[in-house]
Parts: sequence; C-alpha cells; structure tokens
Amino acid sequence: MRDFLPADIRKRNYVIGIIKEVYESYGFEPLETPAVENLETLMGKYGDEGNQLVFKILKRGEKLDLEHAKSESDLSDLALRYDLTVPLARVVANNKNELPKFFKRHQIQPVWRADRPARGRFREFYQCDVDCIGSNSMVVEAELISGVSEILTRLGFRDFRVRVNHRALLTAILDMAGIDLSLHSDALTSLDKLDKIGGEGVEREFHERGIPGAWKIFELLNRLLDAPGSELVVLDEFLGKSGTGQKALSELRQIVALSTDRLVIDASLARGLSYYTGTIMEINVPQLAGSLGGGGRYDGLIGMFGKEQIPACGFSLGLERILVVMDERGMFPPEIAKSVPADVMVTIWSEETVGESLKLAADLRKGGLRVTVYPEADKLGKQIKYADSIGVPFVCIIGPEEAKSGLTKLKNMKTREESPVDLAAIVEKVKGREPKATE
Amino acid sequence: MRDFLPADIRKRNYVIGIIKEVYESYGFEPLETPAVENLETLMGKYGDEGNQLVFKILKRGEKLDLEHAKSESDLSDLALRYDLTVPLARVVANNKNELPKFFKRHQIQPVWRADRPARGRFREFYQCDVDCIGSNSMVVEAELISGVSEILTRLGFRDFRVRVNHRALLTAILDMAGIDLSLHSDALTSLDKLDKIGGEGVEREFHERGIPGAWKIFELLNRLLDAPGSELVVLDEFLGKSGTGQKALSELRQIVALSTDRLVIDASLARGLSYYTGTIMEINVPQLAGSLGGGGRYDGLIGMFGKEQIPACGFSLGLERILVVMDERGMFPPEIAKSVPADVMVTIWSEETVGESLKLAADLRKGGLRVTVYPEADKLGKQIKYADSIGVPFVCIIGPEEAKSGLTKLKNMKTREESPVDLAAIVEKVKGREPKATE
Repeated sequence: MRDFLPADIRKRNYVIGIIKEVYESYGFEPLETPAVENLETLMGKYGDEGNQLVFKILKRGEKLDLEHAKSESDLSDLALRYDLTVPLARVVANNKNELPKFFKRHQIQPVWRADRPARGRFREFYQCDVDCIGSNSMVVEAELISGVSEILTRLGFRDFRVRVNHRALLTAILDMAGIDLSLHSDALTSLDKLDKIGGEGVEREFHERGIPGAWKIFELLNRLLDAPGSELVVLDEFLGKSGTGQKALSELRQIVALSTDRLVIDASLARGLSYYTGTIMEINVPQLAGSLGGGGRYDGLIGMFGKEQIPACGFSLGLERILVVMDERGMFPPEIAKSVPADVMVTIWSEETVGESLKLAADLRKGGLRVTVYPEADKLGKQIKYADSIGVPFVCIIGPEEAKSGLTKLKNMKTREESPVDLAAIVEKVKGREPKATE
Repeated sequence: MRDFLPADIRKRNYVIGIIKEVYESYGFEPLETPAVENLETLMGKYGDEGNQLVFKILKRGEKLDLEHAKSESDLSDLALRYDLTVPLARVVANNKNELPKFFKRHQIQPVWRADRPARGRFREFYQCDVDCIGSNSMVVEAELISGVSEILTRLGFRDFRVRVNHRALLTAILDMAGIDLSLHSDALTSLDKLDKIGGEGVEREFHERGIPGAWKIFELLNRLLDAPGSELVVLDEFLGKSGTGQKALSELRQIVALSTDRLVIDASLARGLSYYTGTIMEINVPQLAGSLGGGGRYDGLIGMFGKEQIPACGFSLGLERILVVMDERGMFPPEIAKSVPADVMVTIWSEETVGESLKLAADLRKGGLRVTVYPEADKLGKQIKYADSIGVPFVCIIGPEEAKSGLTKLKNMKTREESPVDLAAIVEKVKGREPKATE
C-alpha cells in the first residue's frame, strides 16, 4: 500500500474528476459504503481464491476468545471491502424502499486485497464503479459502454477496445463442443488464461483436466479471428438451434446495434468473478497485460441479500491501471503534470511585520489567488530559495517601507524581475501569468 | 458504520469542496495515505485508551499461527488508520528528502475507531486535517486558525469560538498550584472533563486521586471568567516568574495579535491526545457537546519515526460533526439539499426507437446537460411516474414521429406542459429552468 504525495494526488484527482463528471452526465448518482463490511457479507461471493484474499479484522474486547478459537472465523467478524459490487448489492437489498425503481449509481472508493503486488496492482486500489439496478434491458449495457468509452476518450485514449461476451454464450459453446456441464467451470478457468498461456497452454490444461472438445473450440476461435466484424454470423452458424446460445446472441446483437465501433465481440473472454450471469465486458489497450476495467451482468447477486431477485449490470474502471498507462504515455495535461502548491508566496520581513504579511496574503486570497506564506521571519535569500524549491511563479516581498507605501515588490521567479506594484496589480499580474507559469 | 446514499454524498461533497478550496488557497497541498498501517506505527501514540480502540487486521496465510498465538500481537500485524496525524508524521520521516523544507498539507480521509457510537460519532468517520511541518513560528498557528475560521464562515457558521491554550501553560499552572509533575497527567484528564462533570466533579476526582491544589486552579479559572478579554493579563499575574509559563504566554500573545476576534484563550482546555507539546486548539459551537474540530502543536511526534526532531502543528475538522450541526440548523443551500440525479430524462418509445432515444441523450449531453435514459421500452405513464419519483424537472418524449420531424416533446414536470421543440431549444429551456427547478 502506498502514500500519495501531492503530485500523485493531482493526477488522481484529474482522472477521478473526469470519471465523475461523465458518470453524472449519464444520471448516475454517487454512493459510498463503509470500508468495513461484515465478514459473512463478503464470504462466498468471489470464489475460493477471493475468500483467501479478503483482509479480516480481529474481534475486539471480550468477543475475542483466544483460548477457544479454532479457526479464522472464531477470530474475525469484520473484513475490508474487496470490491464495490457486493456492498452495492447489500445496500440495494437493505434499502429497497428508499431507492428508485431503477437505481443508477457510481462509486469511487478504495478496495483491499491481500494479493501479491505487481505493475499497476496494489493491495489497496481504487475502483471506479458504475451500475444500473432494476432492468434487464440491453439499453443498460449500451449506456455503460457509451459512458466508459466517453471517459477514456476524454482522458486521451485512442486505442482502446471494449471486448464483450456473454456467460450463456460460453455455456452454449462449451455445450456444443461436447463438454459436460460439470467441467464448464474448469474449462472457463483455462480459457480465461488464453492471453497469458496461449492456445497450446489451454489445450494442455484441457488435456490434464480431462476436458474434451478443445479442437472444436479452437476451430471456432480461429474462424472468428478470420472474420473480423462478422463474429455474430459465425457464432450464429456454430450455435445452430441452441436456445441458450441464440438468446445470448440476440442480446449481444442488441448491444452491437446500440454501441460505437470500439466494441468487439470476443467469444474467448471469460472474466474471473463468479457472480456474473449474462453479458461480460472488458476494456483493453495494447502494451498493458490485463485490462483497464471490466464488468458485466449479475442478476443473481442482490437476491443473495434480500428476498427479491433484482437484475443488475455494472462496469468497474481500475484507477491505478489507467494512471500507469497515462504516466507511461505522458497523457496528463501540463497544468496537472507540473502543478505548484500556490500562485504566489508572501515573505516575512521581520517579527514586527508578520501582521502586514498575513494581511497582504488574506487580501490576495480575496482576489482569488492561492497564497502561501513563508512561515517565519528569515533571511530574504532563504525565503527566495524556498520559493524556488516549491515552484511558485511569483513572490511578494513586503517590509516596513512597502507596508507604508502600499506598494509591494512583486518578483517574477522565472525572469527574476522585481517591480513595486499595488494590490490590484499583483492579482492581475499573477492571474495573467498563470497559464504561462505552468509551461 | 454507515452507507451514504446520493443525498448524503451531495451534502458531504459540498462541505469537503469548501474545505479543500480554502486549504488550497492557503497553499496546503493534498496528501493521502493508505487505510492500513503497520500495527507498530500506531501503537503507543494515542494513549492506553487509543491502543484499545485501534481496529487490528488478522495475519494472513502462514503468518497466522493459531496454535502458538498467545496475545493479540501474535495474531495481527496491520491496523486501520486511527487518525491522520500519525500517518503524516510517518510520511514526513520517510520522505524527508522529497518534501519541501516547510511541508504544508491537507488530507481528507476516513479514520476508524472501535468506539461506542453516539450523536455525530461513528466507528468510521472523516477527518479533514491541515498541518504545517518544519516551523516553530506562531505564524503557523495564526494561519491554521485563519483558514479554519474562513471555512466555517463560508459554510455559514456565525457563532463558533476558537479556544486556544498551551500545554506548557497547563504545566506551569499545575506547578504553581503545587501539583507534583507525576500527577499532572491525572489532573489534566480530570480538567479535560470540566465541560461534562462541572467544577464539583473535577474537585471530587482531584480528591479521589490525591491531587492537591484544586481550589487554586478554580480560583484562577473564576478570575479568568470574570475578566473576558483580559485573560493574558490575569495569567501573567498568576504565573509570575515561571519560565515555562511565561514562554507559553508569550506564544499565546503572538497568536492573539495575529488572529481574529473568534479567538478565546481558555486555560481549562486540555485535549486528550498525548502527542501535543505546545499550542492546543478547539472549535466549539453552542448546542453541540464536543467540538467541531481541534488541533495543536506536536513537535515530538515525527522524531518517533525518524532520526530528526521536526516541529509540526495542525488542525483537524470533524466532517460528521459539521454535517450534524448543518443538518439540524438547515444550513445547506437549496441546490444541495434538493439536488436531483439529472436535468432531464429521455423516454424510450419502443424497442425499435431505442437508438433514437440514445442519440438524443448523447446530443443533449454534448449540450452540457445531465441526462438519464429510462432504461427500457415501457408504457409512457410508467416512465413519467418514474421521472416524478427521481425528481427530474424535464422529460423528453421521443417516438417515431418525433424522430422523423426532429421535434421532441419536452414535458415540464412542474407545470405538466408539453411542447414540441428542437434540440437547441431543449438545451436552452432546461438550462434556463435549472435554478428554478431546485427551488
């Protein structure tokens, strides 16, 4: 887990700001949930590996009975949030009557996983989620894809692809390849690794696990690769009269019809989380193993917390992944990449003139400037050196004479020029130079 | 711990926005630290009660040896952040060379305490901290008080007081009252409760703990109460030639000289946390037991994490306390208190016209509107009912005819009037009505 120094925060806030703005323009409302959930809320929702990766919190006071504790569950009753989807499902089930019939929310908060860190992977990381609860219409998927595409476009991404698949389509394909339902989960786990271990690797794993039909699946995948843009036709042919398959295909067709050209149907996309029931989606860019984000439909999850099954679909962007790629590609606007803590610094001449300095600072702030004050009486040279170190573009030098005359010495830190000016002129000069100061 | 639904978040973001804006106008830069710290970083910094209230995280995998575990510390190596000051001290000690000589930072993040909840008190709550590291000048205190006062004034508080005291002044007063140094900590713990248990309660506790000198302290406090505005004179007289006392008094004099009339010297203010070494501060409003925030100087804390002692002073505003009072007093501007998820809702006429609805929504967003789309083809009456339920002020009704003519029916949800208008007119009408829509 990491500390974020000011320069990091500015980049993070820039990205978060755009994400929020776009989501709000689509009518998604903000939601926040606590970092800590009941352990039982999280257990059993993310698969076996997920259960292991949940950070558990030690029971407190008398609840902690060390002597009779036999397992982790005797020691822990609370846990850190693992994603934002399960907490959302809990909130929806608990607040059914307070929430509108269709609840569209965004949520940008950290989650925690006791994972081994890697590039763009941390134990504390931010998810930027957007979900629509209450409808099984494919309009939801189309709006999610549109919103996420708009965010990435506004951030400056020009080469992303939204890969889309459908859990029921995968089921139908495995079915048609002659794989028994009991082996589907294993088969999907292997297929999910296609990117990493290649076709040969998948075939070997199928063989080791006693799963038949690999050749039939690869034949299909190859045919799909040979027909870019005609995936739906090839799949239609392959699936024939499979009811499950045709229903999934019809949903994918609707999404394609309503979406941009960033979309690709990718029948090999599986996605790890076990709660997905329909559409699954992922966004990728070249040169980044893994995805910038992903999501899907989870029509069964809310019913695990309440009496009612409520359809739901969502998308989650990974903030850290986006930042890693934007940093590598130098995608931040200059005013974000090189921002400084203040527009101007006010010096302190002596103990006796502190009041004048603070008054000047207050007046400049009223004029709309961000003003930092050198916090103590000190040699002028030291104060100027400090101003250089924090990168402020202007310094106001105010001593007894300046306080009397009302004219402050304004020093331009780039040209090193000094000129005596009044309050209004300082505000004007500093504001006028703002755009240049960040060059 | 609580979920925050959209209406809560909007209020929270409004307050956080003003806090950030003011802090940034003073040249404080943003910092964020992880929710999880090493347990040993937190232990021993907050006093005995604090140690108990820290949420501890269970060790993972092989590190967890249940069989040989004898105490909490065998089971836990990590913990949830308890405040923002100790993490800041750790960051400063670890990043000494990367940070400027004076590091001015603000930090607005949740902290967790395994406390019994009460009004405006929760187990997860947000602190809004502002600190200046590296200077022992009272200019720092003056700027902190000025910034915090500006925030509360901009939020609409008219009746707050900034109470200021000094740890060394307390020491000198207890000294002059004839209390042995070994009893100071007990005496302060009792004095800190003056608000709650009254003078009699404090006297009783002094008696029970064998602390002498209560009458001398109360005599002083009464003299101070009788001389509002002349506290410094009364204290000067009381302290006589006490070196410690006079030094503290001289620092308080500097703060008073540089600050607004919101400031009161309060010699009974003690503040619980054990890391304070100099000035201590607290902000109160009538009708709220407890404070809206507090802070002080902690010149010894950073040295606990690094080789170097570095002076530091900060202030922390309690977001939840501020929100409770603002809610009770109805202090939120109407556009925050009654905000809605979108400016306009677009209906869907039928499966066949979904594309037209999504295109209209996209065009309206390009015009700067926040647009929500009813997510499925449905009876018009149901769609209008939903629009009412989420409070959108306008609805766009677009069917096959409207798509052909380019004129959409715009329904004003307040007047229930409908009129056919083109795209530009929708944007204009909705924008023009925005201020009224939130009345």
